[in-house]
Amino acid sequence: MLFHVRMDVRLPHDLDPQVKADLVAREKAYSQQLQRAGKWPQLWRIAGEYANFSVFDVDSTEELHELLSALPLFPYLDVEVTPLVRHPSKVD
Amino acid sequence: MLFHVRMDVRLPHDLDPQVKADLVAREKAYSQQLQRAGKWPQLWRIAGEYANFSVFDVDSTEELHELLSALPLFPYLDVEVTPLVRHPSKVD
Amino acid sequence: MLFHVRMDVRLPHDLDPQVKADLVAREKAYSQQLQRAGKWPQLWRIAGEYANFSVFDVDSTEELHELLSALPLFPYLDVEVTPLVRHPSKVD
Amino acid sequence: MLFHVRMDVRLPHDLDPQVKADLVAREKAYSQQLQRAGKWPQLWRIAGEYANFSVFDVDSTEELHELLSALPLFPYLDVEVTPLVRHPSKVD
Amino acid sequence: MLFHVRMDVRLPHDLDPQVKADLVAREKAYSQQLQRAGKWPQLWRIAGEYANFSVFDVDSTEELHELLSALPLFPYLDVEVTPLVRHPSKVD
Amino acid sequence: MLFHVRMDVRLPHDLDPQVKADLVAREKAYSQQLQRAGKWPQLWRIAGEYANFSVFDVDSTEELHELLSALPLFPYLDVEVTPLVRHPSKVD
Amino acid sequence: MLFHVRMDVRLPHDLDPQVKADLVAREKAYSQQLQRAGKWPQLWRIAGEYANFSVFDVDSTEELHELLSALPLFPYLDVEVTPLVRHPSKVD
Amino acid sequence: MLFHVRMDVRLPHDLDPQVKADLVAREKAYSQQLQRAGKWPQLWRIAGEYANFSVFDVDSTEELHELLSALPLFPYLDVEVTPLVRHPSKVD
Amino acid sequence: MLFHVRMDVRLPHDLDPQVKADLVAREKAYSQQLQRAGKWPQLWRIAGEYANFSVFDVDSTEELHELLSALPLFPYLDVEVTPLVRHPSKVD
Amino acid sequence: MLFHVRMDVRLPHDLDPQVKADLVAREKAYSQQLQRAGKWPQLWRIAGEYANFSVFDVDSTEELHELLSALPLFPYLDVEVTPLVRHPSKVD
Repeated sequence: MLFHVRMDVRLPHDLDPQVKADLVAREKAYSQQLQRAGKWPQLWRIAGEYANFSVFDVDSTEELHELLSALPLFPYLDVEVTPLVRHPSKVD
Repeated sequence: MLFHVRMDVRLPHDLDPQVKADLVAREKAYSQQLQRAGKWPQLWRIAGEYANFSVFDVDSTEELHELLSALPLFPYLDVEVTPLVRHPSKVD
Repeated sequence: MLFHVRMDVRLPHDLDPQVKADLVAREKAYSQQLQRAGKWPQLWRIAGEYANFSVFDVDSTEELHELLSALPLFPYLDVEVTPLVRHPSKVD
Repeated sequence: MLFHVRMDVRLPHDLDPQVKADLVAREKAYSQQLQRAGKWPQLWRIAGEYANFSVFDVDSTEELHELLSALPLFPYLDVEVTPLVRHPSKVD
Repeated sequence: MLFHVRMDVRLPHDLDPQVKADLVAREKAYSQQLQRAGKWPQLWRIAGEYANFSVFDVDSTEELHELLSALPLFPYLDVEVTPLVRHPSKVD
Repeated sequence: MLFHVRMDVRLPHDLDPQVKADLVAREKAYSQQLQRAGKWPQLWRIAGEYANFSVFDVDSTEELHELLSALPLFPYLDVEVTPLVRHPSKVD
Repeated sequence: MLFHVRMDVRLPHDLDPQVKADLVAREKAYSQQLQRAGKWPQLWRIAGEYANFSVFDVDSTEELHELLSALPLFPYLDVEVTPLVRHPSKVD
Repeated sequence: MLFHVRMDVRLPHDLDPQVKADLVAREKAYSQQLQRAGKWPQLWRIAGEYANFSVFDVDSTEELHELLSALPLFPYLDVEVTPLVRHPSKVD
Repeated sequence: MLFHVRMDVRLPHDLDPQVKADLVAREKAYSQQLQRAGKWPQLWRIAGEYANFSVFDVDSTEELHELLSALPLFPYLDVEVTPLVRHPSKVD
Repeated sequence: MLFHVRMDVRLPHDLDPQVKADLVAREKAYSQQLQRAGKWPQLWRIAGEYANFSVFDVDSTEELHELLSALPLFPYLDVEVTPLVRHPSKVD
């Protein structure tokens, strides 16, 4: 089941650089772990912004929330979730 | 080169049913033609709305505009285009 | 799996009264059918507005879209869908 | 009498972790106390966000305000209240 | 129990003048009836706009909805309801 | 002459508690002084929010601005002023 | 007493040209009458838009509403009123 | 002197096709006339939308308004004007 | 050439009082200097807000930007500029 | 390939002056380097605001993102990107 997610990253300017670097590194590792598990099939950077469009493939809204709220950057994210379905014109 | 597009369909309520059916049919045929050509790799229906999220793969903004403005439903669409790039955390 | 839905009804003022009455009747029958089937556990009228807050209980986003897009009033609705999960403080 | 409430939690990033933990714990206890008292019949987490949709069952707007403004997290909440009534299509 | 209501009147330009005059007359009569019954204690015209701020004094959200949805102009209104309580600084 | 005013209070979270208590006390005293003087005939708390709807009765916009900008909480307020007039349907 | 007013003119496209010409002529005559009476001291066209910024000098909000609601174009206007006072830095 | 202008074209769906074609043709001719006169140095189509970004080079706001309000499509445009100046980092 | 300008002042709450007093004094002196030079013909305080509507009379957008960006409060301002022209109904 | 970009600069008020001066200097140098390379053909300051409209000429969205995200001021920018194409009425 697919969910479209927009994430805008709002890191405070005065965040300790080391804390920031660690956060970003853990975010990348976590994201890649989910991608390899097939949970996060689509991930694009929005050109010109510290934001991304993603598509999550999960079994329930619970799983979606678990995955999103476990993001190391979660406290610094504006998140917008939109449920998706197969489009009637979609060609495989 | 990838572009994220949101399309909201705003068909007038008093549109002749036959005209509408023809429009929707031509839209589907055109969309599937572009999908087969690899120009329209992602297309999802937004659950609960007459709207979709899409990703177009084109060689230029010109091509993007040609493809979008040739949509039979184009005069009835609100379109929002966002340029995408590969995310630094993306796993192939 | 739960989805919160806000529906605002935007019926054209010049809609034929008989057509309108029929639409509203079919909407009621359809809604009550879904409620009895356990798909639409929560439905409230927003005081002072021709709008409602609902909660749908479905097995997938596909099912949610099917149920919503089959609403007789669907062409006249502004729909906003928000996925829900159990709150960590929820008491049964 | 029912009121729909959306609460978005905006905790400052630099809030002392112990203060935060205490706040969140007191919020949970208080919320569960109200739920057991039947005042807070519906409470859902919005998937992907530090926010919830709730329904309060109170005898007056005074009581609603007392309950909401006594929330330990109240100073850090954006709150949106919408009065509800029984929907004419509601099936018991 | 008090509710603050903003009403913006959106009459179609091509509404038959006689229909409009009748609507407005019925609206005035109905409004004055509620005012005399003590249900509509505050009613002001917003200077420069076809809109009003009102305060309704009702026993429940049900009663509020009944009174508002029975307004002859209801189909042509944008309505915004905000529940009120006594202010801690209020002097009688 | 009447003006409708919405005030949203935005106190910084890290404001010294004693400073805050003093501000709020002075605000209450000042508000009650204006109410007794007949300048502030209507004051309601918006249920669930640190905000109020008020109606000021003043002789000029100058007087309105003097009264509002002298509010101890003024630097921490978002203020929205709307001029009112007697509604043609108003019953005394 | 001064009020800043923004007026956006929204004439329906299918308005009979003769009706439109008459409306616009009556609007001009009425506006110039008020200007000569000193009630409408400032009137500017917003470059590139069918809209204006104005300043009205009136004795009360009642007078302001009378003048604005008597504008021939009033039914086709979006109006935004902002009360003004003398600025502390104003030089005569 | 430069002005940035965004124009969104909102043609009614039921506009007579011949009227529309004539409007669009006259708009093109007029636009090219201004471009050749050096008044309209920048003109881009926004990809995917019936809208453009333009830059006008005029001697006064009066001239800007004359040029814009004389656009054949003017009655069907949403126009947003932003005054520009040379950027301190601009390289010739 | 006239430009309408709205300025909202957003001074940080924790700004050193002496720094603030100095800023405000310099702002007043600078503003009065421009007013006497005829560059700033209209300046009103918006009742109830730390904001103003102004009209600047300048020879170019360059001059407008120089005057605005030299405001001592400029770093703390939200500024909205709208170009004006003489209204066709304006009476001298 | 052209992209229209709006950049709003949001520098924190308490940023160390030396850090700020250095940032702004590096931003200027970097911007001029890209302009000389033909990547940043259009750059205007928005009159009255710490913001600019730009046009970038790049070979891909990747290149656009690289150029924008390398801006020294990037962490302090709100960026809005709009893809452009040649307008059908454009005269060379």
